[in-house]
Amino acid sequence: MRRGKTFIICGPSGVGKGTVVARLLASDPALYLSVSATTRLPRTGEEDGVHYHFLTRERFQEWIEAGDFLEYAQYVGNFYGTPRLYVDRAMDQGRDVLLDIDVQGAAQIHRQRPEAVRIFVAPPSWEELERRLIGRGTEDMEKVRSRLERGREEFSVAGGFDYFVINDTVDRAVEELRAIMLAEHCRPEERMALIDRK
Amino acid sequence: MRRGKTFIICGPSGVGKGTVVARLLASDPALYLSVSATTRLPRTGEEDGVHYHFLTRERFQEWIEAGDFLEYAQYVGNFYGTPRLYVDRAMDQGRDVLLDIDVQGAAQIHRQRPEAVRIFVAPPSWEELERRLIGRGTEDMEKVRSRLERGREEFSVAGGFDYFVINDTVDRAVEELRAIMLAEHCRPEERMALIDRK
Repeated sequence: MRRGKTFIICGPSGVGKGTVVARLLASDPALYLSVSATTRLPRTGEEDGVHYHFLTRERFQEWIEAGDFLEYAQYVGNFYGTPRLYVDRAMDQGRDVLLDIDVQGAAQIHRQRPEAVRIFVAPPSWEELERRLIGRGTEDMEKVRSRLERGREEFSVAGGFDYFVINDTVDRAVEELRAIMLAEHCRPEERMALIDRK
Repeated sequence: MRRGKTFIICGPSGVGKGTVVARLLASDPALYLSVSATTRLPRTGEEDGVHYHFLTRERFQEWIEAGDFLEYAQYVGNFYGTPRLYVDRAMDQGRDVLLDIDVQGAAQIHRQRPEAVRIFVAPPSWEELERRLIGRGTEDMEKVRSRLERGREEFSVAGGFDYFVINDTVDRAVEELRAIMLAEHCRPEERMALIDRK
């Protein structure tokens, strides 16, 4: 059986990454979306193991020391991280893994696992991203501006990424992501072994 | 407009490359299959510019000296080569280009144009390739054996290729080739320029 691969999906807030990832998951039940661990308290409706793995600070610290995170960071006083165990288990089962994380997390994982494929979901233009952020209607202009600025920063350090998917239409973005995942399973390391074995 | 890319398709005799390439071309009219130049005489039914560009030896020699071939080789007393002009013109028009050539030709092109994507179409197994070669019924066992041997040789030097497509079923092989071509258009060089321009 072929082994699963890890696909890191980054992209600025408002680009529509959540919608695209949801569509990918719906189209392929074997796909595994990594669930982050966090020390923050659950909000109403959030389930342990579904939205996050909720850990105490002590537990989180133990996992850090045991090397149980592929990446982790502190944000507004809480820790967030990608548990190694679930990712490896899914890949061992032949499932591809999606990591929806930020570019700093992607850089941490890249250092340990350069074979993890890094994909940046980009807006068709910065004006369009601004329109989408304003269109949400949930944030004031100052927050919109700060998200845009962070988006541009993430974009500027993403030049080393393997792929850029432009989320112009969701259908097209999903098609491109699926193409990337299939193409990455056609790499010589995986395929030559397959043929030689027979 | 996006620029076209070059995809080099190699693979052993009998693997079904012709069928797969024909299906690709039928599914995408913008795709351009490079037509080789040769000094051998046309066979019945062969048209100049369709099956080959038929050149005199003098003309072929001039093209070599002018650097007008992306790759060329001599085979059983005749010259064969890939004219640079038609490939570049198609790419300038935004068309992707397929080159159906052997691994030696692929190596020549790779030295000049490392950005050309190299894909090896492989059989699901060597036994299956043997069955397909015998199944054609057009060749005696000695020729089958010599083709198999050459196929294994080509495979053994194709480790540096970008992708391996296993032609188990034509549908699957075509799907993988299309995925590879789409994925390669999601590379940062192409995409970052697209976003920055806006």
